Amino acid sequence: MTYNPPIPQILLAMQTADRFAATQSGDLSPEDVQAILSEAGRFASERIAPLNPVGDRTPSTLDESGKVTTPPGWRETYQAWCEAGWNSLTGPTEYCGQGLPISLAVACTEFWNSSAMAFALCPLLTAGAIEAIYEHASQELKDRYLPKLVSGEWTGTMNLTEPQAGSDLSNLRCKAKRTGDGSYRITGNKIFITYGDHDCSPNIVHLVLARLEDAPAGTRGISLFLVPKILPDGSHNDLRCLSLEHKLGIRGSPTCAMAYGDNGGARGWLIGEENRGLNCMFTMMNNARLLVGTQGVALAERATQAAFAYARERVQGSAPGRDGTTSPIIHHPDVRRMLLEMRTRTAAARMLCMATASALDSSVNAQTEKERHRAYARASILTPLAKAYSTDIAVEVTSTAIQVHGGMGYVEETGVAQYYRDARILPIYEGTNGIQAIDLVTRKLLLGGGETLSQILESCRRTLSAFESCLPAMQAVADTEDLAKMLCDAPGGSLSLAVAVPFQRALANVVAGAHLAEAAALARGGALETEAAVNARFFIAVELVSAVAAAKASLSGADATGSDGLE
Amino acid sequence: MTYNPPIPQILLAMQTADRFAATQSGDLSPEDVQAILSEAGRFASERIAPLNPVGDRTPSTLDESGKVTTPPGWRETYQAWCEAGWNSLTGPTEYCGQGLPISLAVACTEFWNSSAMAFALCPLLTAGAIEAIYEHASQELKDRYLPKLVSGEWTGTMNLTEPQAGSDLSNLRCKAKRTGDGSYRITGNKIFITYGDHDCSPNIVHLVLARLEDAPAGTRGISLFLVPKILPDGSHNDLRCLSLEHKLGIRGSPTCAMAYGDNGGARGWLIGEENRGLNCMFTMMNNARLLVGTQGVALAERATQAAFAYARERVQGSAPGRDGTTSPIIHHPDVRRMLLEMRTRTAAARMLCMATASALDSSVNAQTEKERHRAYARASILTPLAKAYSTDIAVEVTSTAIQVHGGMGYVEETGVAQYYRDARILPIYEGTNGIQAIDLVTRKLLLGGGETLSQILESCRRTLSAFESCLPAMQAVADTEDLAKMLCDAPGGSLSLAVAVPFQRALANVVAGAHLAEAAALARGGALETEAAVNARFFIAVELVSAVAAAKASLSGADATGSDGLE
Repeated sequence: MTYNPPIPQILLAMQTADRFAATQSGDLSPEDVQAILSEAGRFASERIAPLNPVGDRTPSTLDESGKVTTPPGWRETYQAWCEAGWNSLTGPTEYCGQGLPISLAVACTEFWNSSAMAFALCPLLTAGAIEAIYEHASQELKDRYLPKLVSGEWTGTMNLTEPQAGSDLSNLRCKAKRTGDGSYRITGNKIFITYGDHDCSPNIVHLVLARLEDAPAGTRGISLFLVPKILPDGSHNDLRCLSLEHKLGIRGSPTCAMAYGDNGGARGWLIGEENRGLNCMFTMMNNARLLVGTQGVALAERATQAAFAYARERVQGSAPGRDGTTSPIIHHPDVRRMLLEMRTRTAAARMLCMATASALDSSVNAQTEKERHRAYARASILTPLAKAYSTDIAVEVTSTAIQVHGGMGYVEETGVAQYYRDARILPIYEGTNGIQAIDLVTRKLLLGGGETLSQILESCRRTLSAFESCLPAMQAVADTEDLAKMLCDAPGGSLSLAVAVPFQRALANVVAGAHLAEAAALARGGALETEAAVNARFFIAVELVSAVAAAKASLSGADATGSDGLE
Repeated sequence: MTYNPPIPQILLAMQTADRFAATQSGDLSPEDVQAILSEAGRFASERIAPLNPVGDRTPSTLDESGKVTTPPGWRETYQAWCEAGWNSLTGPTEYCGQGLPISLAVACTEFWNSSAMAFALCPLLTAGAIEAIYEHASQELKDRYLPKLVSGEWTGTMNLTEPQAGSDLSNLRCKAKRTGDGSYRITGNKIFITYGDHDCSPNIVHLVLARLEDAPAGTRGISLFLVPKILPDGSHNDLRCLSLEHKLGIRGSPTCAMAYGDNGGARGWLIGEENRGLNCMFTMMNNARLLVGTQGVALAERATQAAFAYARERVQGSAPGRDGTTSPIIHHPDVRRMLLEMRTRTAAARMLCMATASALDSSVNAQTEKERHRAYARASILTPLAKAYSTDIAVEVTSTAIQVHGGMGYVEETGVAQYYRDARILPIYEGTNGIQAIDLVTRKLLLGGGETLSQILESCRRTLSAFESCLPAMQAVADTEDLAKMLCDAPGGSLSLAVAVPFQRALANVVAGAHLAEAAALARGGALETEAAVNARFFIAVELVSAVAAAKASLSGADATGSDGLE
């Protein structure tokens, strides 16, 4: 199945996000943006997309010498991709990055991940490492590592998880010891390390969370270290890949169990201050959450394209009003309902990711300090919505794509089954969607004394009330405000935590619905205008209203989750 | 992960179904039922469950001679299972079947499929073949084939699908030719034939849909033939397995592309009348739909057990009210919400399947002709609900099971990823869930001039109104009645077809909600009583209310599915 980069839809999402936030996310001309997207889309569909089934059928392997080999074609394509400058798109300009806005990175990230998510994961992690190093590392470390990370010659990883410490990092056991020469010795095991070893680059820069011997217990005793695979003197550091996971999806990407310090300790250098490692990690995680949300958009888009193509071609039965002649299944009302659900959920997720990106860009580019602060607070609320909504719907939309294909969807050769398997990691990694919801209701809603949320809901209400026939939607906004108020009054209580996920989905629907309404007003010209109007109409009437009703119902049944009958 | 047969929950579902329908589904004593379930549960958990990962990792193979080999251990276990008498449970007594009620078959079917769905598929198809032959074949065919099909010595298949004819059978091309000796010659290809060839039994009885040369076009020109792999004279019939599908799940079960008549035509015998093959097929499909629904219950139950076990054991973070000490994740409110959703959806699906089974049993056993008719009409409405709801929630519940496991759920070794992959076929085969919904809104709702549906809704209303604090539920029943009325007024229109699936889900929730309320009233004693009360409370307040709200919203946005913007 060919992949068609949805450039008009992405441009509309960018334009909507900027208009909605009343800011400008960057100083590129529309022509520049269009040109970059065209080139990126071409590279993605022509060069990366063919790798996707290859990686699924020929996963990365680990040989006896401890060397990881990526699937056929991956190394060459990765290098060509870096040479074309795609890795350095948003990198800092002082390290030869192009310093382009995050909105543009999000657009391109969608292309790479629609084409082959297991392949595109590697630079996604490098981007996180660049950010953490740039924000928190010493000048010396920056100068030594950033140029090659920005160009993509070297890649980066995040080493958080240990067998006993997944969502809860307070429990980390990996150890760090001062050596006296400014470096540290790291020992311990990490699991689920994406691209922990591979053959696409000669060096890998591991960012590793570990605990100093004299560190306080819990999350306040965790430090972040830069631990390169190859040391500055060219020797191999004391670290290795122990094994690769056998996963449901993203099989092309090597998910490594890593051992540090089998022979006395891997050499590492501190990033930021001792015991403040989580702060540095969160810098990179926020951005990574947005990019994982974008992976959700990417898979949903790809699956939607596959379902539309199949529904146009597959002839079964006679649709109503077709006089008994057989029809392509796209004429059958229930198939149309599925396709519309897929398309609008994908568009909604893209709006949320682009809104977050635009707010992040504004938090850097806006003219006044106050505007920058407001934009950052806005991005903070939008990030869990973008991550959780986009990844939840990726699972749903890829599942519906299988349903549209019928039996053919269950056969691996068709390709949609891979999207379904790949998608299932998204609600889990970079903070499970339950963790996103806890972050939302216990921290983000309270930002600025609740002011940021009020502003977001207020602008949603304004936009939705300008949209045709949106009475149930206005009621849904009011219900969402009531729910938010209730949650803000008891942020950490069992009841609010039990409804956090359905509330997160409801709020995401309200924000996305408002963006789709705005997009329908902005879209001009032929197919895109019709599509935007239909999307907004269906999404607001069906999706938004249902999601808010589900959150309300969830609250009224939340007491049952507290019962003893569960244990 | 050990499988624990949920015998108390199944007994409660049986009791509820009988009470709800005011009938008695069979004349077995409670002690007999308990004894049979205990034995079946033991065989399932001890003998069948160990096969499940084996089949997934070592799928059936086809060798160059055209022979299919099932995974290690399957043949021996299948034979032991037949010898223990499990295949003949519901078979007709005149062919050495035990003639036990369908309710009991549904209970046992849950056990077999919770243990290893790919394994349990084979007898599920044999049961369909037995039914079609028993109802429609000549005495000679019955006497020749039923004894060995009932004992399980031989197995059966259904051959419907061809590449160009999936949901729409009017388009079938497989041909049949009269020979003059009362038999026919069959030629053509079939795809997606479950257990089309295998090594568990010496003979396989294929039921094949084909078209006589002089048959009218469309579905009125299709006949059903019995085509054995081995002919009565001991020679091999002219049929073979061409290839096996490479599937997302149920990998242990061989899904065959079959060729009939490479050498002049496979010998077959007519079942029922010429050109009336679809009637015979529908006999077996209705029952098969209930059993596929039961497969959904089975996978949901297995995944729920795995999630509870993991949540009790995995320690992460500190739950509210636990004074900052770390907790098993079952103490976290959002995890509890997921677990409760999984458990109640599974219980609801079981109620629907058992209600259908009980109605089918009553349609045979009830005292008066009128009662039998009413029970049959009731089963007709309940069948699409049981099939569609149970299989949809199987996909959702197995997905949530992965979420509860976090990263460990994405690793194949944990086992829940297999349930997720296996479950995805269920909303597709035996009539997609969209087809179930079309059947529901264009035919089933209209049964008896709408009288059957009215009676069902009336008894739901009665039961729910007796349940504590069910005001929103009563509103939901009223909304469902309004929706049903609207659908009955325009049964084949685009609008009603576009909301058929959400309506089907809403109606399933209302019926299941009423059964769970009844079960809460019936359950006596300790853990089961608490569980039934919590299930009913949560399901009615959250699930039922949300599903009906979604169906209503779906109606208000249904016009968008008709727009040109989709093509």
